Amino acid sequence: MTNLITIEQKILKKNSDLAEENRREIERRGLLAIGLLSAPGSGKTSLLERTLRALTGVLRAVVIEGDVQTDRDAQRIASLDVPVVQIVTNGTCHLEARMVQEALVQLPAQDLDLLFIENVGNLVCPSSYELGEHLRVVVLSVTEGEDKPLKYPALFRKADVLVINKIDLLPHLEYDLVQTRGFALQVNPKLTMFEVSCATGAGLGAWTRYLEDRVAAHRVPRLAAT
Amino acid sequence: MTNLITIEQKILKKNSDLAEENRREIERRGLLAIGLLSAPGSGKTSLLERTLRALTGVLRAVVIEGDVQTDRDAQRIASLDVPVVQIVTNGTCHLEARMVQEALVQLPAQDLDLLFIENVGNLVCPSSYELGEHLRVVVLSVTEGEDKPLKYPALFRKADVLVINKIDLLPHLEYDLVQTRGFALQVNPKLTMFEVSCATGAGLGAWTRYLEDRVAAHRVPRLAAT
Repeated sequence: MTNLITIEQKILKKNSDLAEENRREIERRGLLAIGLLSAPGSGKTSLLERTLRALTGVLRAVVIEGDVQTDRDAQRIASLDVPVVQIVTNGTCHLEARMVQEALVQLPAQDLDLLFIENVGNLVCPSSYELGEHLRVVVLSVTEGEDKPLKYPALFRKADVLVINKIDLLPHLEYDLVQTRGFALQVNPKLTMFEVSCATGAGLGAWTRYLEDRVAAHRVPRLAAT
Repeated sequence: MTNLITIEQKILKKNSDLAEENRREIERRGLLAIGLLSAPGSGKTSLLERTLRALTGVLRAVVIEGDVQTDRDAQRIASLDVPVVQIVTNGTCHLEARMVQEALVQLPAQDLDLLFIENVGNLVCPSSYELGEHLRVVVLSVTEGEDKPLKYPALFRKADVLVINKIDLLPHLEYDLVQTRGFALQVNPKLTMFEVSCATGAGLGAWTRYLEDRVAAHRVPRLAAT
């Protein structure tokens, strides 16, 4: 068992080192990188579609898609004329920095503002693997129940933002949004929270304004340095 | 990398051996064991609550609950006066046979018919770890989209039953149930499928009759042997 833990620690250390390399490459290209995480079917790709449409003409975005199998999500993004690289993990339950490193070299060379990295749908395993992202955004759907931040705390603890999705379904559910917010803040008091519906578009204005502000803030030190 | 694969194979082999021991112990006790698997928030525990209520006075059931953190699910089951053992994996993304082995010795000694083992909410990692169950039941919620069987094929391939949950929400979703069924059968043509709502109770009669039939069929060789 000790051997196994040592091997896991080595893997995570190597992953962190590669994530640091990724971050330097991402910053060299002037990008703000956002990791998107959630359970399967919480709406990461739908949020991405809505966000990319809203940001057209405002910010230039690019996407790295992570899936266990299929390039279905990459096809959805490509249909919006947004550059996208699909990573198929072939059974692996999370993205790793080395996969993102390989995807980064396939991104177009043009000037870009935002990189979204959509992880495999999984509330457990991705939490240990840094990818080089600047912000971690967890998407939680109201159909999943209130208690997920308590039951899967590691991912919520390492997140910067919580997007609560599918609020259009609230009238049809017994669901306590206040309790969810409370559970999330209990695990991570620093979370920035948004409530949205990717079906109706409700709440997405605040979320995209937040992204615009973060890109602007990310640019300041770069401009100051030149 | 080769070393790592060898270690993983050894772990899985050891797990399979323990699962075989579990299965013998489960059969010695005359139980039919059912593994419940799904993404977080698809409704495994709600299905269990509905099922246990419906089977009261018909079959004697017992539950092993697996969660990364908290004993919230075990509390829900215990409130139904059903014996339950909670496994908290403390970060591990799936149940393993050794955890179930430890839980089995804590089950009450009385005569029982059915053992439910609810895994951690995860559509990837639990697929490789046999626990000693006789049947694997995957729960999929209609709010998760149609394509999950294609995107997470390993778990669906190893399942015996697919329970499609939350059908009460269909009028409020753009969701194609026929497409989901098609995708599931494409990955695993042998799947038995049920469509239910744990909110309204719709479709649960067919599911509980199926369980009663399976328990009866499981008993036949035992009776024949005595």
